[in-house]
Amino acid sequence: MGGDNAPAMVVDGLALALKARPELRFRLYGDQAKIKTLLTRHSDLASKCEVVHTDDVITNDAKPAVALRGGRNSSMRLAVNAVGDGQAQAVVSAGNTGALMAIAKFVLKTLPGIDRPAISTSFPSQRGDTVMLDLGANIECDADNLVQFAVMGEVFARHILGLEKPSIGLLNVGSEDIKGREAVRQAAAILKSSPLPIRFHGFVEGDDIGAGTVDVVVTDGFTGNIALKTAEGTVKLLAQALRDAINGSWRGKIGAWMAKPALMAFRRRMDPRRYNGALLVGLNGICIKSHGGTDAVGFANAVRVAADLIRRDFNERIKEDLERLISGPRLEPPVAAAS
Amino acid sequence: MGGDNAPAMVVDGLALALKARPELRFRLYGDQAKIKTLLTRHSDLASKCEVVHTDDVITNDAKPAVALRGGRNSSMRLAVNAVGDGQAQAVVSAGNTGALMAIAKFVLKTLPGIDRPAISTSFPSQRGDTVMLDLGANIECDADNLVQFAVMGEVFARHILGLEKPSIGLLNVGSEDIKGREAVRQAAAILKSSPLPIRFHGFVEGDDIGAGTVDVVVTDGFTGNIALKTAEGTVKLLAQALRDAINGSWRGKIGAWMAKPALMAFRRRMDPRRYNGALLVGLNGICIKSHGGTDAVGFANAVRVAADLIRRDFNERIKEDLERLISGPRLEPPVAAAS
Repeated sequence: MGGDNAPAMVVDGLALALKARPELRFRLYGDQAKIKTLLTRHSDLASKCEVVHTDDVITNDAKPAVALRGGRNSSMRLAVNAVGDGQAQAVVSAGNTGALMAIAKFVLKTLPGIDRPAISTSFPSQRGDTVMLDLGANIECDADNLVQFAVMGEVFARHILGLEKPSIGLLNVGSEDIKGREAVRQAAAILKSSPLPIRFHGFVEGDDIGAGTVDVVVTDGFTGNIALKTAEGTVKLLAQALRDAINGSWRGKIGAWMAKPALMAFRRRMDPRRYNGALLVGLNGICIKSHGGTDAVGFANAVRVAADLIRRDFNERIKEDLERLISGPRLEPPVAAAS
Repeated sequence: MGGDNAPAMVVDGLALALKARPELRFRLYGDQAKIKTLLTRHSDLASKCEVVHTDDVITNDAKPAVALRGGRNSSMRLAVNAVGDGQAQAVVSAGNTGALMAIAKFVLKTLPGIDRPAISTSFPSQRGDTVMLDLGANIECDADNLVQFAVMGEVFARHILGLEKPSIGLLNVGSEDIKGREAVRQAAAILKSSPLPIRFHGFVEGDDIGAGTVDVVVTDGFTGNIALKTAEGTVKLLAQALRDAINGSWRGKIGAWMAKPALMAFRRRMDPRRYNGALLVGLNGICIKSHGGTDAVGFANAVRVAADLIRRDFNERIKEDLERLISGPRLEPPVAAAS
């Protein structure tokens, strides 16, 4: 029931996802009458869906704590419960992000060694895809949180991007050691001196995200959310400016017609729907957040992300990796940096 | 002497600036022999320049406090002194940002009512240009700082963008009152309840920067710097992806040749050099920071920004406006928001 055009967008998205991954089966939580009506348009999909009725929906403006206490029978809560009970292998929601995080954290619990889960996704850069976290779950982060994000991002990039030894960068306002906030500087000191077998690059700046300087960009949820949305806004601005320029002259229009296949390829590569579906990483279970404003194509992509993570047995992989990475000596900053 | 290709980039930039604004005259501080040699290439410019020799240069990795104490004879310090002494009406530097801010704050002092100056510039959005601050001067900001940035941004947008009543937005991770960090929420409460005659829109998100939802985007220097550089990196990524797509097929190449004037217009509109030249706003004097990696075209634009501010008597205007806006009752958050 989450997202701007739910449940129609969700049902249409599942139909698209099923075409790409015929092995999938779905449990849908929400208004049974509405959903059943929508399913009549997709005969193949209907047979793969079980619909569980509930009237209770968590609205977009609900505070996480209220959603957690009061929404015990909500569609979001029941869907997360299904993963907790083992009835489903992953949950995908386009609803209220804060509520989803609070409910998933309560029901699924965090993985050993992780204090706070983070929102993570991959998007295009000049040198292949880049993983970034946290994209909005944790507004304030200390050095330990950032170090844990680095470790989770490393595991995510290894399994999702298929990189053997992904490089990790901490987002900052400069590359020198003296730059930035205390938490960021202390996290860098911990990562530099730690015995973790991860490849820590050091600080990166905002333009390194698009440049693909590192495979994993680590930051707090406030900065990460603003960076992600600034990039989205910049893509829209440029697309609009390009359209304006092309449509402003007959030469532009003819050229664009000629170059149409190339422009379509460019558009596909940069289509934000292709990158829809962020993982709430650090939970004991796969929980995917779809953009609320996406359409069926975007929602299908979020489902694909969930399906990929299930197929790669990501939840077991990250548990093993975290145990290996974190269960060793407790990570402490070196004395000089802690002073 | 500041910037990646100084002093050649600076001298070439001044030559370009002089063509556009023949009334300008320049004082150059730095290596006299080098500068004089460069000036021989620009006979028109040479007669408009006075060169003041110094061997001392503040490097890019110098800490602000060290630059301030140790760099009393540096080219940067002497150039800022010239504004303090009234020998120049504005200073433009492509050097170390932190050092420039520290020196300018020490020499020129902050304006009454302003605790900390901010870095501010305007750049394109889908609805005209948007002013944003702080872009990196203040890594940690409290609510009072953000409120002062809002007031300074308002004045800057009024005089630079020529808007009668610019709208102000506070950058946050959501538009609801409960979202974001304490300082941001408290600043919003102050701005909402204040008697200031400014048009406060409320919270904006990262994608509102490109959308042009408000005329002035206010944020702390950490977030602002990362948002600005993320946007720059996204522009580069898209430009590269567009080139790749076009060059990947003969239809793409022919189309691009046909649409060349349109593509050039698009490129000019988005050229970051056009937006080079950020104001250190809140100082008693005009101090412009150019991007260190820019070229002569970009540096000329930074000089143009300085010239515009001089012509509009910006320093006197902002003093009057701040007195009118801030000298009233001290701004306090309403009781509910302060709890």
